[in-house]
Amino acid sequence: MAVYTDVSFEDLEEFLEAYDIGGAQVFKGIAEGVSNSNYYLETDKGRFILTLYEKRIDTEELPFFLGLMEHLAAAGLPCPTPVRMRAQSSSGPLNGRIAAILTFLEGISLHRPTAEHCHVAGRALAELHRTGADFSGRRDNTLGLEGWKSLATDCNAHADGVAVGLQQLIASELTFLEGKWPKELPRGIIHADFFPDNVLFLDKKVSGIIDFYFACYDALAYDLAVTLNAWCFEQDGGFNVTKSKAMLAGYQSVRRLTPAECAALPILSRGAALRFLLTRLYDWVNKSPDALVRPKDPRQFEKRLRFHRNVRNPEEYGL
Amino acid sequence: MAVYTDVSFEDLEEFLEAYDIGGAQVFKGIAEGVSNSNYYLETDKGRFILTLYEKRIDTEELPFFLGLMEHLAAAGLPCPTPVRMRAQSSSGPLNGRIAAILTFLEGISLHRPTAEHCHVAGRALAELHRTGADFSGRRDNTLGLEGWKSLATDCNAHADGVAVGLQQLIASELTFLEGKWPKELPRGIIHADFFPDNVLFLDKKVSGIIDFYFACYDALAYDLAVTLNAWCFEQDGGFNVTKSKAMLAGYQSVRRLTPAECAALPILSRGAALRFLLTRLYDWVNKSPDALVRPKDPRQFEKRLRFHRNVRNPEEYGL
Repeated sequence: MAVYTDVSFEDLEEFLEAYDIGGAQVFKGIAEGVSNSNYYLETDKGRFILTLYEKRIDTEELPFFLGLMEHLAAAGLPCPTPVRMRAQSSSGPLNGRIAAILTFLEGISLHRPTAEHCHVAGRALAELHRTGADFSGRRDNTLGLEGWKSLATDCNAHADGVAVGLQQLIASELTFLEGKWPKELPRGIIHADFFPDNVLFLDKKVSGIIDFYFACYDALAYDLAVTLNAWCFEQDGGFNVTKSKAMLAGYQSVRRLTPAECAALPILSRGAALRFLLTRLYDWVNKSPDALVRPKDPRQFEKRLRFHRNVRNPEEYGL
Repeated sequence: MAVYTDVSFEDLEEFLEAYDIGGAQVFKGIAEGVSNSNYYLETDKGRFILTLYEKRIDTEELPFFLGLMEHLAAAGLPCPTPVRMRAQSSSGPLNGRIAAILTFLEGISLHRPTAEHCHVAGRALAELHRTGADFSGRRDNTLGLEGWKSLATDCNAHADGVAVGLQQLIASELTFLEGKWPKELPRGIIHADFFPDNVLFLDKKVSGIIDFYFACYDALAYDLAVTLNAWCFEQDGGFNVTKSKAMLAGYQSVRRLTPAECAALPILSRGAALRFLLTRLYDWVNKSPDALVRPKDPRQFEKRLRFHRNVRNPEEYGL
């Protein structure tokens, strides 16, 4: 949560010349997102977020991300939509980065969502899946099984320094998942990072879905497994089945899971927990002294992974 | 520029119960200020900044800072004013810190102010001095001569590692200032950190003066010397006398400098440059690996100090 690239008002003014959104009246760096620099921008014509894409984002993939948001927003999903320049481009260079201006969404993200919020979030995720179905862009999930293997190799030597037995847990989990990972589930556009930070609420309704920079084409039920991992565990590590049940019901009120998806939920949840365990572990052992972001503790997802390993059937999630 | 203390929406909701400003609709950490955590807050009743005072601020001094802002705002100066709780308190505990809610001000701070902006800023500073005259609170300048001496002692061993000759420059400057520092100049409430970051503009008018957490009771002309240091040097280190002239004229259009103040301007400017050289040097050599803020390069103020040492008379500032 930081601003990596400094943008002065004067830089902004020049950048805004390509747009038709008036002059800036408020302009503040905001502590949101870990991969980009974000500024809150208010002009006489509206409220916006200016995003500068930092090194973690491959800017060749920007047209996919921006095009997806434009598609979803046009179909009525509450997500930011890129503002086009007069010359129709959705992004352009600013202070050595590629930058885009997106519409601002009201609402607040929750740290401790209730079961009711989980229900609504599940429904919103299914709506995203449904709305994404006719988007033609494609992007592979770079954080799928192959990506996990390469992260595990990079972190191997440091894993036990973070938690005793972690190296062994990761290795055995990878072997298991490689043998059993389901390949025939319904696929489509997934958000892949549908955490409470990325969902805004107003009056118990979803008013915004943000941060599409992990979105890709993959199994829809995997996205649901990520979301279960993100919303349905308590601070103390316990799994809250009431929340999970509410989330699954919310999801299925829009899109019914197939029997194969239901059966795969435990393994998908293991994969999802491993994915966040590995990326957090990587950031943890590679933290730079110059970083402006405190890395998140990977052990939270170690616990969640161990929970899913003990699940014997999908009903344990409240299906 | 970071958020040190995390505040969830749920924490916020509880804190807001003591206020009469409605429920939150937007709540975002903002990258502003180096000593505090700041959040932008929007409710159905208005726009606010929630500030959590971190360790750099002595919370016993908060009543002075908050009382001063309330006084200045009530007198029409565009500065944030603390919102009082229903029980009339202007601050209260939140997540292990003391927190306050202040009114939000529109406008934008400039990185490269023009001479016209300097004129307007000079006028605003004089208005602050005039409006502060009938504020009864008092706070010593902890970053005056005695504070500089103690900072210099702390940084002594590291100074030459930052710039060759820096230790000797600081030592000789301190000796000089101790002998000649003027003690009889008109005193009053000063901002003491009137940098471009702390002044918001809308349509070339000052729409906001923020960050009063260095404010204290000291020589008014010293505040002007700080402001000259902050606004009238170019990126390449050069002194821009057109800007300085404009600033002094703006200031004097509201409050005329006394002959003693005019005569003292060169030495006050040396002291002001030394103050920022020392605090930046201290932060530079003591940077913590966990810091979320990149320290500012102290050498910028080394250059400014060397400039002022060569000034022979106040007219060189455009007086």
